Amino acid sequence: MIEYYDVSGCYILRPWSYAMWESIKDFFDAEIKKLGVKNAYFPLFVSEKALIKEKDHVEGFAPEVAWVTRSGNSELEEPIAVRPTSETVMYPIFSKWIRSHRDLPLKLNQWCNVVRWEFKDPTPFIRSREFLWQEGHTAFATKPEADEEVLAILELYRRVYEEVLAVPVIKGIKSELEKFAGGLYTTTVEAFIRNTGRGIQGATSHCLGQNFAKMFEIYFLNDNRERKMVWQNSWGLTTRTIGVMVMVHGDDKGLVLPPRVAPVQVVIIHIPSKDIETNVLIESCKEIAKELRDAGVRVEEDYRDNYKPGWKFSNWEMKGVPLRIEIGPKDVASKQVKVVRRDDGGKDFISVENIGDSIKNLLDVVQKSMLEKATRERDSCIVQARSWDEFMAALNNKKLVMAPWCDEKEVEEQVKERTKADLSGAAKTLCMPFEQPELPEGTVCFSSGKPAKKWALWGRSY
Amino acid sequence: MIEYYDVSGCYILRPWSYAMWESIKDFFDAEIKKLGVKNAYFPLFVSEKALIKEKDHVEGFAPEVAWVTRSGNSELEEPIAVRPTSETVMYPIFSKWIRSHRDLPLKLNQWCNVVRWEFKDPTPFIRSREFLWQEGHTAFATKPEADEEVLAILELYRRVYEEVLAVPVIKGIKSELEKFAGGLYTTTVEAFIRNTGRGIQGATSHCLGQNFAKMFEIYFLNDNRERKMVWQNSWGLTTRTIGVMVMVHGDDKGLVLPPRVAPVQVVIIHIPSKDIETNVLIESCKEIAKELRDAGVRVEEDYRDNYKPGWKFSNWEMKGVPLRIEIGPKDVASKQVKVVRRDDGGKDFISVENIGDSIKNLLDVVQKSMLEKATRERDSCIVQARSWDEFMAALNNKKLVMAPWCDEKEVEEQVKERTKADLSGAAKTLCMPFEQPELPEGTVCFSSGKPAKKWALWGRSY
Repeated sequence: MIEYYDVSGCYILRPWSYAMWESIKDFFDAEIKKLGVKNAYFPLFVSEKALIKEKDHVEGFAPEVAWVTRSGNSELEEPIAVRPTSETVMYPIFSKWIRSHRDLPLKLNQWCNVVRWEFKDPTPFIRSREFLWQEGHTAFATKPEADEEVLAILELYRRVYEEVLAVPVIKGIKSELEKFAGGLYTTTVEAFIRNTGRGIQGATSHCLGQNFAKMFEIYFLNDNRERKMVWQNSWGLTTRTIGVMVMVHGDDKGLVLPPRVAPVQVVIIHIPSKDIETNVLIESCKEIAKELRDAGVRVEEDYRDNYKPGWKFSNWEMKGVPLRIEIGPKDVASKQVKVVRRDDGGKDFISVENIGDSIKNLLDVVQKSMLEKATRERDSCIVQARSWDEFMAALNNKKLVMAPWCDEKEVEEQVKERTKADLSGAAKTLCMPFEQPELPEGTVCFSSGKPAKKWALWGRSY
Repeated sequence: MIEYYDVSGCYILRPWSYAMWESIKDFFDAEIKKLGVKNAYFPLFVSEKALIKEKDHVEGFAPEVAWVTRSGNSELEEPIAVRPTSETVMYPIFSKWIRSHRDLPLKLNQWCNVVRWEFKDPTPFIRSREFLWQEGHTAFATKPEADEEVLAILELYRRVYEEVLAVPVIKGIKSELEKFAGGLYTTTVEAFIRNTGRGIQGATSHCLGQNFAKMFEIYFLNDNRERKMVWQNSWGLTTRTIGVMVMVHGDDKGLVLPPRVAPVQVVIIHIPSKDIETNVLIESCKEIAKELRDAGVRVEEDYRDNYKPGWKFSNWEMKGVPLRIEIGPKDVASKQVKVVRRDDGGKDFISVENIGDSIKNLLDVVQKSMLEKATRERDSCIVQARSWDEFMAALNNKKLVMAPWCDEKEVEEQVKERTKADLSGAAKTLCMPFEQPELPEGTVCFSSGKPAKKWALWGRSY
């Protein structure tokens, strides 16, 4: 998946994980193009002047910005920042490009690298100093249009997780404390990691309101020739997706990959025997491989003779390949193959007749069943708490906690303060889920005792 | 195409040009995958220690390296370079990954940004401080395998230029002076820009030999358990491709795009008239648009009512769209459309019956004819010269010059020195073309008068 590197916090995405990123990219890129979003490319570097224009935004990012101060042996006249995100790169240009209501909506996206020199412990995929992502930046004439797009993109993020990665997520809105620096509101998809009992932010879709438009002077003339400010969104999905998928599905034997994102969906391994010439056996395997490839299945054939079948089984299990096909002399004779599922260890014999269709169906079954299993496990780890004691008990039991909340910034800060003594770090709101349990009149906040306004999902997080 | 930016030497690729990059990428990526190359992603940053390991290489790149020295307000313990190319990023890892002949060949590629803080005048696409490219890095057990791949990749670069961009190129090998810093030999595809009479390097495929393998200790155990050094290649294609295409085909009216790379291949414009309801006319246009789209043609419809048709014609001509379809009341009545070619201004009426096929054929004709035209023009600008005077005359007449040459580094340096007084800069070898004219015994070098070893293609360059 990854390789370590001599610049701390940077990792190498090996072909195995990069191919997963390509699958995610292909899916999402096709979907946003349907929404009329166009890809472009803006520079890696930001001038200090542009970077510091939006006050809240720069406060959020400044401590993590990497600065280029030298080229060759010459000091630059002005230091130049490496983009931590591209609002301040793009919006000065938006103000040039947008003149009239006919220039709206403007919907741009880019696939690129960004750098955040974080001092928290770096973790491959989850928190690295350089990562790959897409960042969408759009501008609209009206707030309702912006609001609608925020949700349309969030739905695509849900589909990336649930349909492509088989990872269940909860959609919701971020608290004031957790929202994007400089934005109006942030929506999110939140996933859950069973082993650590922690929530993890999957991807965020922000309505920026008019804060950036004001700072970067992005105005347009409406139908009546009146000068108006645009409404903006930004939204991003990173290589963290891969890390979440790995943590949600992995087991003691290694990776477990959902078929849609697996670089190899089926590995074919021959089982040599004195009952059959190895050449003849491999020929049979190759025919099956060809049929599967023709059906659009991603197949790998492992005929290495310096490893025993058992070693190969473990090796491909570790890599997470969804299906293993074993073919020995008996299978050749009876025109069938043995198929072993990586996700639940299920074994079956499948006829070579129409094997393309059979395997494709089975891959669909595996994909669906992995999402169902992960959803059951996640659901069993969400607990409702109405008091501080219930809250702490659930938290320390590695659960996510749904709790009625007064929705006050100070109260979230207090909860963080009261929980952070613990080694596993502070609890915070992951989101206020769109899907809300009933909140009977008179319900009070689990922490402040004030009237509760909403249910919030709390947890320790990454 | 591009937008200027407040960090000097950096440009914004607008959706129009980025879509061209996507076409190039899709073509090349599919082809290298057929050769067994896998995509991966290596970090943007290089430690100083790795960067300076190969002496010639670092001399070639050091003056242009951008250095990150600060994060937030803290000085970094060691400055970190932004990759100008990734040999020094990848090869320390290659030495970890490659152990046995079974690990070879290793064929990796990445699509990414690189930074070269050049002080020559930056020019959009042609020379920018940050640019996008692919860089392939491969390792083989033997030199013949490496040699073979160098040429296989060069052939793909030729196809990108000739088949996708309709730009004729000359394949050849670089002189010692012009080859890649630290490599063994460099092959290249060279294009020609009529207006300026200059050559331009299109893309390069390098055999690195074993220089890097030695410095980065990339060894493998062969079949006989002997420790051997790998043979390496690297090869790259950049967004310069787009600039070359623009300069080769553009005319006084603006861009002229070859159909295969045009983001929009056909624009449909309605010609309003008192003889027909505008709604009815537009309905007819929409039917044609749908049929073309169903046939796989990239269509844009321009029904804006705040511009006259003539203004729209010029506007889409400027953007380079290969075909314009005009539809007025007469065309609706006679079930035909008027088609105007951007490349040669040719006009024709085409029946709406099977219009999908007709237009696709016409797009093929345009693609072919653009390459033919550019090839004729290029060929007419290559002149043979056997003496210094002939050489200078051709050069100052904005030609490329094929001249017999002794193939000595010092002589190329002298030619550069003797020609650089001129405002348009020094002449240099573009390459020694693979396709060589006959070189009769006794032919002497146009410059040194020593025995000529080869024909070299000389010119002023970008």
